[in-house]
Amino acid sequence: MAHKWVYLFNEVKDAEAYVGGDWEDVRGLLGGKGANLADMARIGVPVPPGFTVTTEACNYYSANGEFPEGLWDQMMTALAEVEKQAGKKFGDPKNPLLVSCRSGAKFSMPGMMDTVLNIGLNDETAAGMVELTGNERFVYDSYRRLVQMFGSVVLEIPDEAFEGPMDEFKSSKGYKLDTEMSAADLKELKDIFKAVVKKEKGFDFPADPFEQMRLATIAVFRSWNGARAVAYRKEEGIPDDLGTAVNIVTMVFGNMGNDSGTGVAFTRNPINGEHKVYGEYLLNAQGEDVVAGIRNTEKLETMKNVMESVYNQFMDITKKLENHYRDMQDVEFTIEHGKLWMLQTRNGKRTADSAVKIAVQMVNEGLISKEEAVKRVTTKQIDALLHPQFDPAALKKAKVLTSGVNASPGAAIGQIYFDADKVVEMHNDYKQDCIMVRPFTKPDDVHGMLSANGILTSEGGATSHAAVVARQFGVPCVVGASSAVIDMEKKTLTCGDVVLKEGDWISVDGTTGKAYEGKIAVVTPNIEDMPELNTLLTWADEIADLQVWANSDYPRDARRARSFGAKGIGLCRTEHMFFETERLPIVQRMILAKDSAGRTAACDELLHFQRADFDGLFEAMTGYPVIIRLIDPPLHEFLPSADELKEKILTIKVSKEFDKTIDDSELPELETMLAAVEALHESNPMMGLRGVRLSIHFPEIVKMQVRAIIEAACDVKLRGFDPHPEIMIPLTGTVRELKFIQPQLEEIAKQVMAEKGIEVDYMFGTMIEIPRAAVTAGEIAEVAEFFSFGTNDLTQMTFGYSRDDAERSFLAEYVDKGILTENPFQHLDRKGVGELMRHAIQEGRKTRPELKVGICGEHGGDPSSIEWCHIIGNNYVSCSPFRVPVARLAAAQAAIDNPRA
Amino acid sequence: MAHKWVYLFNEVKDAEAYVGGDWEDVRGLLGGKGANLADMARIGVPVPPGFTVTTEACNYYSANGEFPEGLWDQMMTALAEVEKQAGKKFGDPKNPLLVSCRSGAKFSMPGMMDTVLNIGLNDETAAGMVELTGNERFVYDSYRRLVQMFGSVVLEIPDEAFEGPMDEFKSSKGYKLDTEMSAADLKELKDIFKAVVKKEKGFDFPADPFEQMRLATIAVFRSWNGARAVAYRKEEGIPDDLGTAVNIVTMVFGNMGNDSGTGVAFTRNPINGEHKVYGEYLLNAQGEDVVAGIRNTEKLETMKNVMESVYNQFMDITKKLENHYRDMQDVEFTIEHGKLWMLQTRNGKRTADSAVKIAVQMVNEGLISKEEAVKRVTTKQIDALLHPQFDPAALKKAKVLTSGVNASPGAAIGQIYFDADKVVEMHNDYKQDCIMVRPFTKPDDVHGMLSANGILTSEGGATSHAAVVARQFGVPCVVGASSAVIDMEKKTLTCGDVVLKEGDWISVDGTTGKAYEGKIAVVTPNIEDMPELNTLLTWADEIADLQVWANSDYPRDARRARSFGAKGIGLCRTEHMFFETERLPIVQRMILAKDSAGRTAACDELLHFQRADFDGLFEAMTGYPVIIRLIDPPLHEFLPSADELKEKILTIKVSKEFDKTIDDSELPELETMLAAVEALHESNPMMGLRGVRLSIHFPEIVKMQVRAIIEAACDVKLRGFDPHPEIMIPLTGTVRELKFIQPQLEEIAKQVMAEKGIEVDYMFGTMIEIPRAAVTAGEIAEVAEFFSFGTNDLTQMTFGYSRDDAERSFLAEYVDKGILTENPFQHLDRKGVGELMRHAIQEGRKTRPELKVGICGEHGGDPSSIEWCHIIGNNYVSCSPFRVPVARLAAAQAAIDNPRA
Repeated sequence: MAHKWVYLFNEVKDAEAYVGGDWEDVRGLLGGKGANLADMARIGVPVPPGFTVTTEACNYYSANGEFPEGLWDQMMTALAEVEKQAGKKFGDPKNPLLVSCRSGAKFSMPGMMDTVLNIGLNDETAAGMVELTGNERFVYDSYRRLVQMFGSVVLEIPDEAFEGPMDEFKSSKGYKLDTEMSAADLKELKDIFKAVVKKEKGFDFPADPFEQMRLATIAVFRSWNGARAVAYRKEEGIPDDLGTAVNIVTMVFGNMGNDSGTGVAFTRNPINGEHKVYGEYLLNAQGEDVVAGIRNTEKLETMKNVMESVYNQFMDITKKLENHYRDMQDVEFTIEHGKLWMLQTRNGKRTADSAVKIAVQMVNEGLISKEEAVKRVTTKQIDALLHPQFDPAALKKAKVLTSGVNASPGAAIGQIYFDADKVVEMHNDYKQDCIMVRPFTKPDDVHGMLSANGILTSEGGATSHAAVVARQFGVPCVVGASSAVIDMEKKTLTCGDVVLKEGDWISVDGTTGKAYEGKIAVVTPNIEDMPELNTLLTWADEIADLQVWANSDYPRDARRARSFGAKGIGLCRTEHMFFETERLPIVQRMILAKDSAGRTAACDELLHFQRADFDGLFEAMTGYPVIIRLIDPPLHEFLPSADELKEKILTIKVSKEFDKTIDDSELPELETMLAAVEALHESNPMMGLRGVRLSIHFPEIVKMQVRAIIEAACDVKLRGFDPHPEIMIPLTGTVRELKFIQPQLEEIAKQVMAEKGIEVDYMFGTMIEIPRAAVTAGEIAEVAEFFSFGTNDLTQMTFGYSRDDAERSFLAEYVDKGILTENPFQHLDRKGVGELMRHAIQEGRKTRPELKVGICGEHGGDPSSIEWCHIIGNNYVSCSPFRVPVARLAAAQAAIDNPRA
Repeated sequence: MAHKWVYLFNEVKDAEAYVGGDWEDVRGLLGGKGANLADMARIGVPVPPGFTVTTEACNYYSANGEFPEGLWDQMMTALAEVEKQAGKKFGDPKNPLLVSCRSGAKFSMPGMMDTVLNIGLNDETAAGMVELTGNERFVYDSYRRLVQMFGSVVLEIPDEAFEGPMDEFKSSKGYKLDTEMSAADLKELKDIFKAVVKKEKGFDFPADPFEQMRLATIAVFRSWNGARAVAYRKEEGIPDDLGTAVNIVTMVFGNMGNDSGTGVAFTRNPINGEHKVYGEYLLNAQGEDVVAGIRNTEKLETMKNVMESVYNQFMDITKKLENHYRDMQDVEFTIEHGKLWMLQTRNGKRTADSAVKIAVQMVNEGLISKEEAVKRVTTKQIDALLHPQFDPAALKKAKVLTSGVNASPGAAIGQIYFDADKVVEMHNDYKQDCIMVRPFTKPDDVHGMLSANGILTSEGGATSHAAVVARQFGVPCVVGASSAVIDMEKKTLTCGDVVLKEGDWISVDGTTGKAYEGKIAVVTPNIEDMPELNTLLTWADEIADLQVWANSDYPRDARRARSFGAKGIGLCRTEHMFFETERLPIVQRMILAKDSAGRTAACDELLHFQRADFDGLFEAMTGYPVIIRLIDPPLHEFLPSADELKEKILTIKVSKEFDKTIDDSELPELETMLAAVEALHESNPMMGLRGVRLSIHFPEIVKMQVRAIIEAACDVKLRGFDPHPEIMIPLTGTVRELKFIQPQLEEIAKQVMAEKGIEVDYMFGTMIEIPRAAVTAGEIAEVAEFFSFGTNDLTQMTFGYSRDDAERSFLAEYVDKGILTENPFQHLDRKGVGELMRHAIQEGRKTRPELKVGICGEHGGDPSSIEWCHIIGNNYVSCSPFRVPVARLAAAQAAIDNPRA
């Protein structure tokens, strides 16, 4: 038997048999479009008759410059069958069949390859068409388009060669628009275009429909190796040896009278997910009329009134297509003389809201599995659903002030203030909505950030302090808005010609990274109002191997996290608590103390504050573990900056030289403070005296913290709750650090329980955030009962990047130049940091098979990073409360894509 | 046959047969002392007759609380044989045999277990001994010692019980010293001691010699489980189940008249290595008389005159012992009535000089192999040999000013100066010997450090800038002398009550970390004057698998390194060259340039300087590879400090407010500079914009450097030398950095060679100093042709320790508390950093099997780190020129201890 180069749309079974049954291979042979049309034909959906020339034929042509033997004969045989199906004849002046010749590769390459429509028209068949349709204008417009398209695509005549004469013709008639041309004009234009072909190529436009088809087929083959297509494939990583198929499809026309029409539809509502076909159509019109919006379309429902049986047939087809493709479809159709033809179907795009609802509906209908539902919704959609958003209509009218990095999503409106204390005051005392505006933020701004509705900074990147804290607390935030000039002295925010002062209103869109002048209306979604989302995430939890916990420092955040589905607190940062107004002076007294007794005394004053902090947290998270990290940052963060102190001192001293009467009484205190600050100065504080190093140096602080934790846990348990404190030691680099400090802390825990007369479950574990800890994790697991990856620091040390510095300087340049494919502080670097994590888990579990492993860095809320955590065997990920739903979905998707053994 | 519990000294073969031939097992059975005495007996060296009760007997006693069956009988049988050998009889009043009962475990536990001397004395045998020796005082002194020692050790009577009555007795006689007691006094004291025993224990001191022996044996057994011994074993990791042996040894006496004597000797000269027995002796004396120095000893040579045959016998024995132990021996001997007894032999301690000479002699004599010779000398000895030293006699009289960390060994004398430029001026213009004194040093002090004889700082640790640079250039250096107060304004160095000013003389001992007032005489060794050392190191090179290269930035250092045996330059730091006086302004101009054109223009000016630097280096190292590291440090190091600039600006501004006439014309320039400095400011510069990151950001500098390197190599080759430049890219974290920059640099190399019309061998490689580079080394080796471990940075990043900060703050505390066993910046951390290195080599060689791997961090000169580099498969280590001989020895020792497969 001769090789088969051509498949009719109803021969899809033969194609399947030839490739061995795999649908992907059918797509490889027939291209995506051909396979899809054949697939619809197979399930009995009416598609215009046609056939596909295989990609193999294209590849033969590319290699040999000629059709393979038998191709043309097979095309003619298939065409005869198409004529039979269509009830028309190719080249027949009485009842002419017109066809399109369309490219169609395995992977969609939109606009990269060629198509010729209306093949089969010449003077004779055109006259016949006029006879049949009574629409001379339509026929000659189609004809002149064929000549133009054929000339350009097949004969490679430059577009300008047609455009020039057409413009001349139009202006000679005084027309501006194409639509002004009459049937006669178009007939004349067709002849002008034919003359262009003759002039450019030296031969006539081929009147023979078969020659048209042969040359169009060759043109499509050739277009596979066209410059645009080659460049596109290189960019997208599509192999060059796939080739394209050629589809010869019967042309159908919706503009054949009032028994004809055309339309587009979604099989369910893509906006709100309603289970109802959603579409529009036009009678006696072509597809482009619907798209162009020249005529007002009708709602699809009204078609029932004008052509009920076609409408019912269409409804049946949409159901059939949904059942076949098991997803909501986006379809195009044409009705020609009362006959319905489906021209295209594909999975429909939809809003986040609709995506969630349709996925849940389809599970309930038994159409898809829970796993499929979970994969149908993206983490970006979940994220978008849960953050307050500006009303899109209001946004259009708003004035953009500046734009920067979209650091923490959501919409915020407020009056601007430049100082954390001021924000707290206006928020607490005057119940104002505030936006905090600063060049950048520091740990001692956190109380202000927590009281603000939104944050705007002119410096910093996506993981700057402002960005991290904002995401943590779900505060909408734009950072690095570099066109904004923030004058901290004058307290002004200048954007171009707009100068705003304290108390002026702005709106900050953390989702898009823009800030607007004035107040913009806001829409706030609420997870409780989204039963389908809750259902979907419950399914996600069933599927996921990873649990999702949250990073929360305060009871109210813990409650929010719990309502979002968090199964524990993975990180409570105790030092945030030290910055509160009434505590900071005690903390400073502790730092400045001359000896252990002085430090202990100050710690004793802090004890009841810390105990109260933990008490609320344990109560809010009753039944779930709460990981509390002992103090981590270097002590200088709690003191004023050396620069400020030096400036004050020098100003006083120099002034005093000129004017002896100047009051310099505060000098001794300033100088004492400066000496303390300078004693704590480090060239590279990120790698300095912090974390467990600080605890070993000054054990008083962590001893107080452990006492506060266990006292609170005992108190909460005595009140009938079920606390599970897990105490986490940060910045461990060697197991000996744990061996040194942990027994001292365990001693305190036992002592407190004896004092309180009650036992609580507790555990000691460590952060894995120093590369050496990852390398020597086997030893560290001898002492640590759990690991939590601190991937912010681990990324810093593994890359040797200081996050704040790098994001201000070379990191963006690295991503631009392709040296980094993405910012490793946003998406975990699998090859470097990720490999260290994998090693740490393997070695840790060799020592302690039941070792519990989590992650509490910024990456805990990032889907790609969550997938990696799943792959390497984490037990949980912990992220900011607002990211919990996203992380739950990501964890389930990771489990589906990477089944654990 | 009954189990054998007792071995005579001449039954060592039976013991070997019993344990299966292994000498270590013989030591396990007989203990170290017993095995050694038996070993000497076997080779015919006269040792006092005796026998050993095995450790097995001890273990039986420990388990059962009684002697095993047959033990006492076997002891009696052995004793009879000893009596025969000694020609004396145990308990015989006429000719009594006295014995010692000594513990002796497999591993030496000095002072931890018990010994009883003079067993066999009672009133009758003492009288017989007096008869025999005519020395009543000696006999009764021995007797009272027996009672006291037996009472204390065997009967466990507290020492005070004897000391009290003895003090009373002495004061009743008006004596202060023991030596004032007469024979009669001692006889009386013996009876007082016996009364103490009676009083304390309720029974008499056992007069029966056999009972003495039995009880003493039990006491030694028991002492194995004494508190002291158990604690010692725990500390040293010696197993508890080894048990101790008991040695019963005939007492011999050198104080039996003028045909008796005692002495100690080394079989060769331990001071200067001369091949001649070196010792001293005393006639008619006991061992303690020689040690105590009460009488003046005689040189051993003079013994030839008084007892020639004994002398000749002794000489033969020393040769025999050397041949047997194959090392220089430290021996003790006693002559009793003309009969020579060897009491001990062990390998002798010796000076560095002597160690080298003896090792080489012994190879030449065929006594030991070259490998053994290489193992006989320690790296510390080599180090000590090669650094100038203060004359020890002069040191004793010198006044110590202060002491700190011995950062770079050697002795230096000079006049103190506080400023780098001043040091250069005094050195160049006035040919002064200078000591640079500063709180700490920075890169722009390097020219001063190079011109100084020595360096003293009051801050910083063993790897501070001052320490690293000083070691690199072999400048004696003491850092962190915290008791010294250095006033940079007044230019004074205050140590206690001594205040020194510019130009005053001090002496700095970098070997001990002390600084002295005034000038101290110095002794300077010279490697050319040490032929044996040269020989030994040549053998080391033959044995080693690692080559030793040197870190050198200048031709004169390269020449020195070559003379010390370096086989290449492993690190030439190009940025040192940027700090030289005439270049720094150009470098600053480059940094401050507004655009690439400005930077290129400044780089063009630097080109000829850099080319000249490399030219000299390539010439000096002709035939050997020279690795040049492209610019590494952050640019702010080349600019003034922000603090200084701010202070100047603020002073001018505040002053101006009071006095409008003040000249502020330099303000704009200062502010421009400050803006530039602040733009380059980084929170953690160690992890900032430096190394390859800087090259990607500002490629102009490295392009100039590569041009300079290849131009110089071409020029040198055209002059007939053989240059091998290897260009090293620092701070790589991902292979894409190399893929981005390396092709641009290779392009320049090719261009230069085309211009010069000559080809040179060159290579591109990278530092592995970022943890991620080690983790992803497999990828990096796709581009890099060689790796060089930058273990300073790799240690910083892997531990997350900022070196300068950590050494100033918690590192010492960590070592104190045992959290770190040693400073990881001095000795490579094998478990963490070392494992990353091993991984990097494995993965790198999977990609590129011929990958050349070296190390150029501080650790390259540290023997333990060199051993690790050998183990993981480095090709070479590179260290400062002065460390090259040490490293050559260490590399050979590593190869011997860890043979590569």
